[in-house]
Amino acid sequence: MEELFARRIQGVPRSFIREILKASLNPEVISFAGGLPNPAFFPVREIEAATTEVFRKYGPSVLQYSNSEGELELREFISQRYKMKKGLNIPAENIIITNGSQQGIDLLAKVFLNSGDSVLIEEPGYLGAIQSLSLYQPVFRPVPVAATGMDVDVLDRNSTDGQTKMLYTVPTFQNPSGITYTDENREAIAAVARKNKFILIEDDPYGELRFSGVHAQSFSAFLPEQTVLLGSFSKIVAPGFRLGWLAAPTWIIEKMIVAKQAADLHTSSFTQKIILEFLQSNNLDQHISRITDVYGRQCRAMTVAIDRLFPKEIEITSPEGGMFLWGKLPEGRCSMTLFHEAVKERVVFVPGDPFYTEKGSKNTFRLNFSCVDPVAIEEGVTRMSAAIARFL
Amino acid sequence: MEELFARRIQGVPRSFIREILKASLNPEVISFAGGLPNPAFFPVREIEAATTEVFRKYGPSVLQYSNSEGELELREFISQRYKMKKGLNIPAENIIITNGSQQGIDLLAKVFLNSGDSVLIEEPGYLGAIQSLSLYQPVFRPVPVAATGMDVDVLDRNSTDGQTKMLYTVPTFQNPSGITYTDENREAIAAVARKNKFILIEDDPYGELRFSGVHAQSFSAFLPEQTVLLGSFSKIVAPGFRLGWLAAPTWIIEKMIVAKQAADLHTSSFTQKIILEFLQSNNLDQHISRITDVYGRQCRAMTVAIDRLFPKEIEITSPEGGMFLWGKLPEGRCSMTLFHEAVKERVVFVPGDPFYTEKGSKNTFRLNFSCVDPVAIEEGVTRMSAAIARFL
Repeated sequence: MEELFARRIQGVPRSFIREILKASLNPEVISFAGGLPNPAFFPVREIEAATTEVFRKYGPSVLQYSNSEGELELREFISQRYKMKKGLNIPAENIIITNGSQQGIDLLAKVFLNSGDSVLIEEPGYLGAIQSLSLYQPVFRPVPVAATGMDVDVLDRNSTDGQTKMLYTVPTFQNPSGITYTDENREAIAAVARKNKFILIEDDPYGELRFSGVHAQSFSAFLPEQTVLLGSFSKIVAPGFRLGWLAAPTWIIEKMIVAKQAADLHTSSFTQKIILEFLQSNNLDQHISRITDVYGRQCRAMTVAIDRLFPKEIEITSPEGGMFLWGKLPEGRCSMTLFHEAVKERVVFVPGDPFYTEKGSKNTFRLNFSCVDPVAIEEGVTRMSAAIARFL
Repeated sequence: MEELFARRIQGVPRSFIREILKASLNPEVISFAGGLPNPAFFPVREIEAATTEVFRKYGPSVLQYSNSEGELELREFISQRYKMKKGLNIPAENIIITNGSQQGIDLLAKVFLNSGDSVLIEEPGYLGAIQSLSLYQPVFRPVPVAATGMDVDVLDRNSTDGQTKMLYTVPTFQNPSGITYTDENREAIAAVARKNKFILIEDDPYGELRFSGVHAQSFSAFLPEQTVLLGSFSKIVAPGFRLGWLAAPTWIIEKMIVAKQAADLHTSSFTQKIILEFLQSNNLDQHISRITDVYGRQCRAMTVAIDRLFPKEIEITSPEGGMFLWGKLPEGRCSMTLFHEAVKERVVFVPGDPFYTEKGSKNTFRLNFSCVDPVAIEEGVTRMSAAIARFL
């Protein structure tokens, strides 16, 4: 009966990361392979207090069906935060609540992509986006990113075919590379999007996790009519709620609501009310600064240890926030082979392969620092350098 | 920029029901238009106690990312209930947790449908399924249902094209008609599915809401290898959690997990743990029997009032469970016109139109009894009969 499956699902692999995570179940293994926020900062007591308050305030109504757009007050909170933090005017009516920003990617693909349409995507790029978009059978046109952002010439060249629908980006503390597009780079990208007529998807789950430097501008500041913003509470509050949002210009948002309704009617009203109550009763900025203090310390510990212990031919990015570093082995060397050496030293990371739309051996790798304390970081980097020494 | 939209989203209307619901916001209006479970039976205190227990048991871990399949213990509970209630052997590994059964429909369409494939669907059928499936651009082949189930001859005739992927059904207390397929009818449908090689989707949100008669067999009893079951906690516990499930044979389930992961990584682990705790600490059967006692009383009140007050040329179904009655005006009469007359009498219902895949004026209509007490039912039916008298 296998012939009944749709073409889109044939050959799509399960997320590679989850397979790798199994290797890190051994408690003796130090894992830089994760992509999870640090649970030490999940505000459990505050969430519990918020939950009690939600039951008191709303009673049974909080357990009833609700609207597809999401809770208005929560969307207003997000709207006000865009205003306050980025100076963006995005009314609550242009925001819908999604099951994490991952669902935002899926809904955008559903609304915009015919099979065979071109999708621009940063390379390396978020593997969850590659997987989600793949199911709509686009032609991927990867555009390389480096320390200051995206290669605008390649972007322009790759989007003149008239079949290009969207550019997917995580322009701030990118997953996997940790880099941030400069404001100049964003302005130049917006100019290409205006000229070649595609939408800009700015997925920003890490943007608030800045431990140094200054806030970057949103694409929305340069090209609001063609920018869709994806946001998430996963990294600044907790991921278990599966709460994110999508902010889009008026000509797009109505279609997104239809797609959301068809996908699952609406996101849980119960969890939306709890997070709203949490946000209204606590100081989110203070909470985030507690997270970034620690992430910043852990990032520095990793950078310092790598500087001291890794051979100079290995390049490493220098993030100002987020959860990841990105490494590059000398040309032609395979990070998957290094991975197997590293497992023998009881340390794991994610080889670069799943972050590319074209499969094949890669010389890059991702290191996560959000869930490892400085002592373990020092020890893990030491173990990795032993594996590298043997490998090179 | 409208040309950027995918073909699938062009022309898909927003759910008609939600538009109609606006008409019932006037407190003087009696609404038979709803499709909501009665919030008087949401076990708020028990859910609140379960939530407290979940925080105590799990702490921060309940707010972390989790697996795409869903919480194993919850899937085991569902597996055991299939065994106990229906004698079905469905291991937990063949069950995934979804955001309501609505997401199950979307994921099935994603995994099975190429644009242009044939989809069999009961007529009238659940409008949320019509909307969700529409986005995958199938050719709908509607199959009429009547008091004892589906027209098997039409089913066979409509599925011999070799392009037929699936049959979508709500075979027990169907939405919108309230009818239930007999066991003989199900067996005959399964035989056609075996012969013509398509999968059977059994969406069963109302099956446990039986207030008379005996339980019907599942398609899974006749053709397990080609049956996918969709279930939901929305009508037996509460819909605000957006928790449902999908049970499928092994050759299908792996692809469904990939689709679920791409769609939103996973359903909230927090709400899953809460409902699991609720199910373990309370007697679900007792809870359901409290609901069905009242729904049964309300259904009888509506049936009795209609028998007394509606003219005999209007046909009405006689459900043994669920939340809906289905009415039929004389041939050629338009229920949308009756709707406008009914609004003048301060009573609303849902005209049949959105429950068909082919648009056009229909002579059918849906009445909901789950959220209206017997006194209001009597008054509402009286008002409707006044509208009908004027209309006919």
